[in-house]
Amino acid sequence: MLSQAEVEAARERAAALLAEAGIVLTPAERDAIEVADFGLGRLEEIGLQIVVYVNTDRVCAKELVMFPGQTCPEHRHPAVGDEPGKEETFRVRRGVVHLHVEGQGEIVLRPGEQFTVPPDTLHWFQAGDEGAVVSEFSTKSRDELDVFTDPQIARATIVSE
Amino acid sequence: MLSQAEVEAARERAAALLAEAGIVLTPAERDAIEVADFGLGRLEEIGLQIVVYVNTDRVCAKELVMFPGQTCPEHRHPAVGDEPGKEETFRVRRGVVHLHVEGQGEIVLRPGEQFTVPPDTLHWFQAGDEGAVVSEFSTKSRDELDVFTDPQIARATIVSE
Repeated sequence: MLSQAEVEAARERAAALLAEAGIVLTPAERDAIEVADFGLGRLEEIGLQIVVYVNTDRVCAKELVMFPGQTCPEHRHPAVGDEPGKEETFRVRRGVVHLHVEGQGEIVLRPGEQFTVPPDTLHWFQAGDEGAVVSEFSTKSRDELDVFTDPQIARATIVSE
Repeated sequence: MLSQAEVEAARERAAALLAEAGIVLTPAERDAIEVADFGLGRLEEIGLQIVVYVNTDRVCAKELVMFPGQTCPEHRHPAVGDEPGKEETFRVRRGVVHLHVEGQGEIVLRPGEQFTVPPDTLHWFQAGDEGAVVSEFSTKSRDELDVFTDPQIARATIVSE
């Protein structure tokens, strides 16, 4: 669980990192930055800050903001009915990201570098010492269907009063 | 038709505009910037410079670079077999873009603003006085199937020796 103050502080930091990367948000996007602690309450260590630009039935685009050393924990995107799982490309805009993909080992991505994670493939990633800004281009996001390796994880963040 | 020197000069300008917008390319991406004159040989007036990050069967992401006053001419993306036409979101990163969409009139997009063009819908757009950098998030790009209103247009650029 995160407090409302923790969420707002994380939004503030994420907005600053995006601005440093030259990425412009509308005020509404800034106020809606998602702060995900994956239900673990250890945001600095395991978490992600997310701006969703668009998420239709066919296409999704986001910016992911990571604090120094922050990790997005291992998960996969399973098939949905006849549709293969989410396919996502991570493109690093600022900072360094250590991406770990099932069957591929560790892939180090620097600004301008990218990797496409196939559907239903386990992956996790961690920001380097300066944090990171990562663009994600993908098929439809259905976060609630993501399968995490750690059974203690809940994708939806709970914010206390 | 464009000369090889014209193409290289346009790539140089596009790379500079991307750098000003804080967008980092790999050297291979820089060298592969597409310069499209739509077969009209009037690049300054009608044209587009394009960096394709990813274009799979499901997802495409690009940066579009526009010189001051440059226009991408009216076209639509028709259905392909059972699949609806390309759906694309334009998000302006730098500069101003005047987007014209069938049934919607003119939409002025400034940095941080975006619009999603539905499949098979006529649209064209023009950069303002400072040029523009626009991120495009879409379903698969099949440029060769685009339908342009001007019958003189050919989507593939021909470069002379």
